[in-house]
Amino acid sequence: MTSTLLNAITAASRNEPDSGIISAVNHGIGRADIIPVWSGECNMPTPEAFCRPAIESLLRGETFYTWQRGIPPLREALARYHTRHYGRPFDAENFFVTSGGMQAIQTIVQMIAGAGDEIVLPTPAWPNYAGHMRLSGARPVEVLLDFANGRWHLDLDKLFAAISPLSKAIVLNSPSNPLGWTASLDDLKAIRDECRKRGLWIIGDEVYARFYYGGTGETRAPSFLDICDTEEQMLLANTFSKNWAMTGWRVGWLQAPKALASAIERIIQYNSSGTAAFLQQGCTVALDAGEDFVAGQVAKARSNRDLVAASLREHPQIRFELPKGAFYMFFALDGMRDSLATTLRIIDEAGVGFAPGGTFGPGGEGFLRMCYLRDPKRLEEAMHRFGKWLKTSKPS
Amino acid sequence: MTSTLLNAITAASRNEPDSGIISAVNHGIGRADIIPVWSGECNMPTPEAFCRPAIESLLRGETFYTWQRGIPPLREALARYHTRHYGRPFDAENFFVTSGGMQAIQTIVQMIAGAGDEIVLPTPAWPNYAGHMRLSGARPVEVLLDFANGRWHLDLDKLFAAISPLSKAIVLNSPSNPLGWTASLDDLKAIRDECRKRGLWIIGDEVYARFYYGGTGETRAPSFLDICDTEEQMLLANTFSKNWAMTGWRVGWLQAPKALASAIERIIQYNSSGTAAFLQQGCTVALDAGEDFVAGQVAKARSNRDLVAASLREHPQIRFELPKGAFYMFFALDGMRDSLATTLRIIDEAGVGFAPGGTFGPGGEGFLRMCYLRDPKRLEEAMHRFGKWLKTSKPS
Repeated sequence: MTSTLLNAITAASRNEPDSGIISAVNHGIGRADIIPVWSGECNMPTPEAFCRPAIESLLRGETFYTWQRGIPPLREALARYHTRHYGRPFDAENFFVTSGGMQAIQTIVQMIAGAGDEIVLPTPAWPNYAGHMRLSGARPVEVLLDFANGRWHLDLDKLFAAISPLSKAIVLNSPSNPLGWTASLDDLKAIRDECRKRGLWIIGDEVYARFYYGGTGETRAPSFLDICDTEEQMLLANTFSKNWAMTGWRVGWLQAPKALASAIERIIQYNSSGTAAFLQQGCTVALDAGEDFVAGQVAKARSNRDLVAASLREHPQIRFELPKGAFYMFFALDGMRDSLATTLRIIDEAGVGFAPGGTFGPGGEGFLRMCYLRDPKRLEEAMHRFGKWLKTSKPS
Repeated sequence: MTSTLLNAITAASRNEPDSGIISAVNHGIGRADIIPVWSGECNMPTPEAFCRPAIESLLRGETFYTWQRGIPPLREALARYHTRHYGRPFDAENFFVTSGGMQAIQTIVQMIAGAGDEIVLPTPAWPNYAGHMRLSGARPVEVLLDFANGRWHLDLDKLFAAISPLSKAIVLNSPSNPLGWTASLDDLKAIRDECRKRGLWIIGDEVYARFYYGGTGETRAPSFLDICDTEEQMLLANTFSKNWAMTGWRVGWLQAPKALASAIERIIQYNSSGTAAFLQQGCTVALDAGEDFVAGQVAKARSNRDLVAASLREHPQIRFELPKGAFYMFFALDGMRDSLATTLRIIDEAGVGFAPGGTFGPGGEGFLRMCYLRDPKRLEEAMHRFGKWLKTSKPS
């Protein structure tokens, strides 16, 4: 019966591999003394200041269907937030609220790519991109970043050579999960120019824009918004999850040309039928009153990054580039051939929960990912345990 | 630029019509004295008893990523709820929490149908079925219910004749939105037998199961669960929206054979990446402690149905069947050729917000839909206004 049922679903649904992150979580969750660094989330719950407006809204009875594009106050707060950080006017009408950053990506892919279409994607990358594309019938064309001499490098010629007549878009996640690699303004310009020339969509995932370890006074990474017009052929996915410690809220946004507003509204209607209005009230306050919180998170991430890097540098079998952005360490472990098996063993044998590099697509095998936006004391303990394990164990 | 951008999205995204319900809402929302009966929701906010557990969870800091299948207490509460109403044991492992009933349907369609596949669907139906299928690349094959002598009739021979080698499933929404038509146990058995014979998925949307105006002691409509095994080729979509006045929460569930658990988990990961755990705490209490509330809602719907029916019967140009289930009146208005134009005019000229029948697919033009799970005093006023309009106006 099981095989009959599995044969009755689509090949894409049946054959898609499980996320290695979920496999690690499912293996380790609930253990008494595990230190989890597998997921991309900080260890602090959402600040009460962002919860209170949601609670008040709920108790006011704002529990009905709402605007498919998002409540007007949140769309206006998004415009204000962008004006503050990108130094020019933004219009609320370019913002569409989604049920998480993942749903923003889903909406984008559903809108621009059908069965057989291709989307060019640098990897290693968050597995949900390629996974979602495959499930939608689109084909991710993965272009490997090179890791050589301890540095990640995106070869733009190689990226552009992957474009075919079936291509609809280039997706760029910068700062990158899992790499921490961050595109320069020149990289972004080259991608923009190529997309313009070839009539492709620019898809930007700048979810980690604020987690950028640049020079003094730099509060965000270089962005497509520095060099593109909001009305051009560009779609940006974003989320409240990372900046404001709201991973569990499942609220994000999509920034798009106004000409697509009706198409986006229809897709949202057919995906989620909108996002809870009362949650959006909390997100509005996070945008308007959350700057100190974000600054504190970024400072914590930066000092944790340095703590973890110093510890990893003690092991000659480990190689990595110090991340310029995001909050992950993605490190190669010499001799490791099966990152998932190794991850599960480290959970069992050392009580530390990494994510396996192999799940981040071609080029990711041989690496492990850890999220370092965690409590520094626990991170120290995790590095201590992992260091001990490295001394007595061989990776699988 | 606008046309360039629209040409760069898929034809399915570009050409999909706007939902006529959304068009009506967008036309009328925010007007001072409109009586809205356009959406499928009651006029009462979510009871505080269901909000409190969500608030407490939020303040406890349950704001992290959570189980993609839903939190275990909610899945167990779903099993208890089904055991109570369907008179046999159910297993929590057959339930998967989604971000609304719509996302349950999306997950089903993504899992079983790819580009070019067909899904057989009786109409008039909630427009989101066909809309979502078209966006996903699947083809809805719509089979008209007949409205003759004031009764809706599903011709099973016609339904089964629509099955082709490309068919993957039959979708049945019973009780039906917008018709109120409710399948008999014999209808369900015939559909089950045909699906079994042809190797098709049974897709059941029993969202309105509790809103059933049967005999004394009947607390739900006939269900596929009366005649099918949970491990057979059947997928059921459901939601917290209707029974517990939680439309704005966007939480639903999917009931599926256990063999599909991993596939469903992956699709949820790539759609929404899960549903807020703190919202699920409220839903758990709604299931366990919401029976009196549901009974009150159903009693209100039944008496409102009779109130509206009595009023509509005063107009000879109106024809309808007294609904057996759900909470909509779907009535034909003689002489109406454009239900959307008429809907917008009634908003402007009478201050009553219906939904246009044409948006519910083939067979829906010539009808208007109203939701009667509203305040009875306002419903009376709406019927009074509409009656006056009918005496002085001709429909478009």
